[in-house]
Amino acid sequence: MAKEKGPRRPRAETPKGFRDYFGAEVAERKAMLDTIAGVYHRYGFDPLETSAVETVEALGKYLPDVDRPNEGVFAWQDEDQDWLALRYDLTAPLARVAAQYRNDLPSPYRRYAMGPVWRNEKPGPGRFRQFYQCDADTVGSGSVAADAEICAMLSDVFETLGLGGDYVVRVNNRKVLNGVMEVAGVLDPADPEKFAHERGIVMRAIDKFDKFGEAGVRALIGKGRMDESGDFTKGAGLSDEQADTVMGFMNAKAGDNEATILRLKTLVGGSATGQEGVQELQDIASLLAAQGYGPDRIVIDPSVVRGLGYYTGPVFEAELTFEITDEKGRPRQFGSVAGGGRYDDLVKRFTGQSVPATGVSIGVDRLLAALHAKGRVAADTRGPVIVTVMDRDRMADYQAMATELRRAGIRAEVYLGNPKNFGNQLKYADKRNAPIAVIEGADEAARGVVQLKDLYLGAKIAAEASHEEWKSQPAQTEVARADLVAEVRRLLGMA
Amino acid sequence: MAKEKGPRRPRAETPKGFRDYFGAEVAERKAMLDTIAGVYHRYGFDPLETSAVETVEALGKYLPDVDRPNEGVFAWQDEDQDWLALRYDLTAPLARVAAQYRNDLPSPYRRYAMGPVWRNEKPGPGRFRQFYQCDADTVGSGSVAADAEICAMLSDVFETLGLGGDYVVRVNNRKVLNGVMEVAGVLDPADPEKFAHERGIVMRAIDKFDKFGEAGVRALIGKGRMDESGDFTKGAGLSDEQADTVMGFMNAKAGDNEATILRLKTLVGGSATGQEGVQELQDIASLLAAQGYGPDRIVIDPSVVRGLGYYTGPVFEAELTFEITDEKGRPRQFGSVAGGGRYDDLVKRFTGQSVPATGVSIGVDRLLAALHAKGRVAADTRGPVIVTVMDRDRMADYQAMATELRRAGIRAEVYLGNPKNFGNQLKYADKRNAPIAVIEGADEAARGVVQLKDLYLGAKIAAEASHEEWKSQPAQTEVARADLVAEVRRLLGMA
Repeated sequence: MAKEKGPRRPRAETPKGFRDYFGAEVAERKAMLDTIAGVYHRYGFDPLETSAVETVEALGKYLPDVDRPNEGVFAWQDEDQDWLALRYDLTAPLARVAAQYRNDLPSPYRRYAMGPVWRNEKPGPGRFRQFYQCDADTVGSGSVAADAEICAMLSDVFETLGLGGDYVVRVNNRKVLNGVMEVAGVLDPADPEKFAHERGIVMRAIDKFDKFGEAGVRALIGKGRMDESGDFTKGAGLSDEQADTVMGFMNAKAGDNEATILRLKTLVGGSATGQEGVQELQDIASLLAAQGYGPDRIVIDPSVVRGLGYYTGPVFEAELTFEITDEKGRPRQFGSVAGGGRYDDLVKRFTGQSVPATGVSIGVDRLLAALHAKGRVAADTRGPVIVTVMDRDRMADYQAMATELRRAGIRAEVYLGNPKNFGNQLKYADKRNAPIAVIEGADEAARGVVQLKDLYLGAKIAAEASHEEWKSQPAQTEVARADLVAEVRRLLGMA
Repeated sequence: MAKEKGPRRPRAETPKGFRDYFGAEVAERKAMLDTIAGVYHRYGFDPLETSAVETVEALGKYLPDVDRPNEGVFAWQDEDQDWLALRYDLTAPLARVAAQYRNDLPSPYRRYAMGPVWRNEKPGPGRFRQFYQCDADTVGSGSVAADAEICAMLSDVFETLGLGGDYVVRVNNRKVLNGVMEVAGVLDPADPEKFAHERGIVMRAIDKFDKFGEAGVRALIGKGRMDESGDFTKGAGLSDEQADTVMGFMNAKAGDNEATILRLKTLVGGSATGQEGVQELQDIASLLAAQGYGPDRIVIDPSVVRGLGYYTGPVFEAELTFEITDEKGRPRQFGSVAGGGRYDDLVKRFTGQSVPATGVSIGVDRLLAALHAKGRVAADTRGPVIVTVMDRDRMADYQAMATELRRAGIRAEVYLGNPKNFGNQLKYADKRNAPIAVIEGADEAARGVVQLKDLYLGAKIAAEASHEEWKSQPAQTEVARADLVAEVRRLLGMA
């Protein structure tokens, strides 16, 4: 008989494409999201938290670059054979909520939402299958004042996070683009389905201007583009003249908003949709100027189109303009961290009635990375004061010290590992980024004193001081037990 | 040919057993969790956020009352045929993290975690398939000082939330229970698997003391219990004498901790495990007494066993002791809102090495309900100041007013619905719980003034005042446009 083996041990691993967030990572993200929520709140937006799980039919199919239903989402069948899925963004659940509670919600309904979303996509470096989004939307207002408000709020978010001068919110309008498409002859208002395929290619090409450059975009909207590896992507097949019109639109950004708008007016010619779009941009620019948001913060820029198919009017994108060094050591702009726009048809899926809506989504991980790059991270990541254990029978005394410190508002803990090796206790304190170690052996206890070891100063001295200086232990002070709290407060700069 | 129907519209519904949280619900929960996180932080605990998705093998099978793997969880197969699932609690992911990062984490590792968990169970009234947990655990310390610390911290959480005097943390020890089982003859230290089934019944019976009462528990550990509907549950089959021993344990709680511990010492007789457990309880009681946590806050209580099978030592349960009225109008104690204990074998599943761990989980929804019942909810749920729109061409002026108010720290927004019907604007302000409406028509604009309508006072007058008083509109004040911010601040009590 074969010898029985024990059961295989489970692997201690996150699933592929998922990750854990520890200590400072969680605290820093929370501090950032709290700041953003504060701005959203001040603008009158209310929080909404929908469940992570939705029915597949409610979610719909709005992921970019995805054609089959369920593709890109994590989905499963429940016991009633209904398909359920994890939400892939925060907009689809909002559309469901706006339809489900349409008789109870205030209208317009301003809401913000922050939380994880899930994408069943191939993971890659820095690309995870669960990540945070942070959205604000106004449902039920068709006024461009709602779009302008979203842009102003986004600008305030960056200012409040300490990124003033390092960002720009760029605004465009899908209606203007549609007007240009009409002029170029790839959109027939009488038959909107015609040329939809070509327009899709044009839009995606414009959206990738940063990546492909002007020549690449021109190739994609014309005959097609050969990439560096020799792969050929078929183009939209526009003639040179048609392509000129589209490229003219993309490059219409002028020295100021007025000049840009003038160019756009010419480009959309007689297209009623185009003219409407230009008027909306003009209104947005005026509203923002009246509130003091100059083009250094929010600017009309026709090269912004946003990839998602559901936008119907103004679209926005926020870019961080400072330079970082990429993985190959080359300087480049930090780039896009938020985007959004007007989507008037998402609620209609459920109710049959069109409900105007506009909003923005902030890429939380990218924005946090930007704050790191600029040294603007707000969370306090200092470790606790560590009360060391010199005598394990006196645990009650050590815990009482930690309690006293905590009651005085000081983060503190007792070392709870095996106390035998004191060096391990100090290594632990170091790993925790502890500012101070409290030491009380039998001798100190008898004399009514404790030793306070300033670990930050100690580390500095260890790195810089001579052997004599180091031996004199300037980072360690003896204080009366009764003065423990006061002396720790003083060392922490809280006094 | 049959007439073609349009595609069926998707239903705007959450999946069965899921729900949405709006405005104040989100803000109140967040305020509570922030307060709890503050206490955890002060005790030196660090936040950890694991992904919602785990491999099924990493999660293991630790749901109470569930026998088949995958039962009770939402699970699906990924493209590599691996089974993934939504986490059902925050302890299983912690065990995975402690194993995965065992060489990098500080030891002991104190961590807290807050977030949703998912259970694929039959939903019922107030019973949802996604709900929040809020846990704190210490991994890597076998010292009962770690258990005592968790109890003290839990007590501090309730005090900080304003529930002082309204709670008690009850502490017991599985080892004492095992000692009693030995004495009763249903646990043989030489063959721990023997009588496991009987012990399971005994433990679940004790855990349901609140529900079944003493007679019910006695029936369950003896021959069996017939419930009101006539259904018979087979018992553990203990003799009367054996049952007496178990019931003696359950009822061992005396007037003070010392007396309880004395009784337990007698009950566990010569069982080494039992004696060890009693000693641990004694140590916990001493440690807590030394820090000033009296038995009015934390008390030794042998009737606490906790349902989960994985506990190996001290177990705790926090109960809120104030009375509420149940759905049938009868008074009852609010009951349990948190529980936990020591589980030394969860990490061993992965590594083969035993890692001592202890922790607590707070039931977030129940605790929030308790704060509501006691009027201790902390969040500010006041709506924004509403700038109404009298003249839609002057939107820029209205938005500028809201901007001024916000820059002065006042939550404010412009009405962005159709402004035609002014009554709708006031109804909207009412729905938003707005404190003030700002009104500026052409006449006011020409005179350089605005009207401020105190909506809270207005509602009060409408409810109480005579027609004459109401007509004099004491809730409406005319102020200079230049004084808008100062006057709104004054009305809001911010001046």
